[in-house]
Amino acid sequence: MQVLTRNALKGTVKHISLGRVNAEVTLEIVPGVEITAVITRITAERLGLEEGKSAYAIVKPSEVEITLG
Amino acid sequence: MQVLTRNALKGTVKHISLGRVNAEVTLEIVPGVEITAVITRITAERLGLEEGKSAYAIVKPSEVEITLG
Amino acid sequence: MQVLTRNALKGTVKHISLGRVNAEVTLEIVPGVEITAVITRITAERLGLEEGKSAYAIVKPSEVEITLG
Amino acid sequence: MQVLTRNALKGTVKHISLGRVNAEVTLEIVPGVEITAVITRITAERLGLEEGKSAYAIVKPSEVEITLG
Amino acid sequence: MQVLTRNALKGTVKHISLGRVNAEVTLEIVPGVEITAVITRITAERLGLEEGKSAYAIVKPSEVEITLG
Amino acid sequence: MQVLTRNALKGTVKHISLGRVNAEVTLEIVPGVEITAVITRITAERLGLEEGKSAYAIVKPSEVEITLG
Repeated sequence: MQVLTRNALKGTVKHISLGRVNAEVTLEIVPGVEITAVITRITAERLGLEEGKSAYAIVKPSEVEITLG
Repeated sequence: MQVLTRNALKGTVKHISLGRVNAEVTLEIVPGVEITAVITRITAERLGLEEGKSAYAIVKPSEVEITLG
Repeated sequence: MQVLTRNALKGTVKHISLGRVNAEVTLEIVPGVEITAVITRITAERLGLEEGKSAYAIVKPSEVEITLG
Repeated sequence: MQVLTRNALKGTVKHISLGRVNAEVTLEIVPGVEITAVITRITAERLGLEEGKSAYAIVKPSEVEITLG
Repeated sequence: MQVLTRNALKGTVKHISLGRVNAEVTLEIVPGVEITAVITRITAERLGLEEGKSAYAIVKPSEVEITLG
Repeated sequence: MQVLTRNALKGTVKHISLGRVNAEVTLEIVPGVEITAVITRITAERLGLEEGKSAYAIVKPSEVEITLG
């Protein structure tokens, strides 16, 4: 991953919970802006994710929907 | 869509470009934090998206990846 | 979410099962037409999903594949 | 693809429009229930999709979101 | 599923682990090339997946990202 | 992107075609194994993709489906 990637939002791990196969990870991008990811538990462990750690949330543009709220 | 939805990032349309089938839309969430979506052109038109308009970027948690940068 | 959203299929919750991180939810759209979603358990709980409840299944067009069967 | 696949909705092509890279295809599942897919133009051509043709819309459960409308 | 589908990578199940809702399945495409899928446990059971069994990993082109490593 | 990422398939760009918003890129992973991605045209240009160039195809495990063919 380099600066070349669009939609890479830098944040801090605020919460993480582990299931058997998956893990849910919430990053705080800036105060009041959070994004939650469900990734495999193995990836969460390999990345050594834990609260307070810095990480990036990555999303492909084709997977982002737009609504008017 | 209600407050019930997680991963709904509110922002302002900063840029939009139209193809025949799809449209690329970039929202500024806060200064320095942008997210780009590729949606169908028809949806972009129905939503009346244009620069400066307020909108939400929505992403399912299972489609967000985490890396360490 | 408004009528603006395409690919919003209205149905009734027919089955729901909970894991630690995720939940599997099956909606019956019309008799004989069902669609299954895997969402986070937290979202399932916030939405108060339970059998018989009315809900929408939403899918981005870019995530729908077409085959001939 | 066999009967083994969940989330395979059978329908009839109601509309198709072609871009240079992608194609947008709308299937009518039953009267009043439609689902739109954006697939590559090459796939649309290989499948020989055209209005009136029978086809399946396939979606992974992890890519279906649930809301209350 | 027929030969019509692009991005169908044939492989052999190398590892499978089951959660309550999901299952993680790793296919070896060729020696040194593996791909991991998270599918529902129900689908894994219906397909009768187990180590050594032949299967296909399918991905929509719009869900594949490209980077330079 | 580091070795930490699963489902990063290294290959060589075999074909690329550009639309107005999107680009279709086919990587050859090993002879006989190809994977096609649809990414934004802007990303394709930023990465400087062209035939013969080395690149990685990345897919989230939750977006890989398994079938028996």
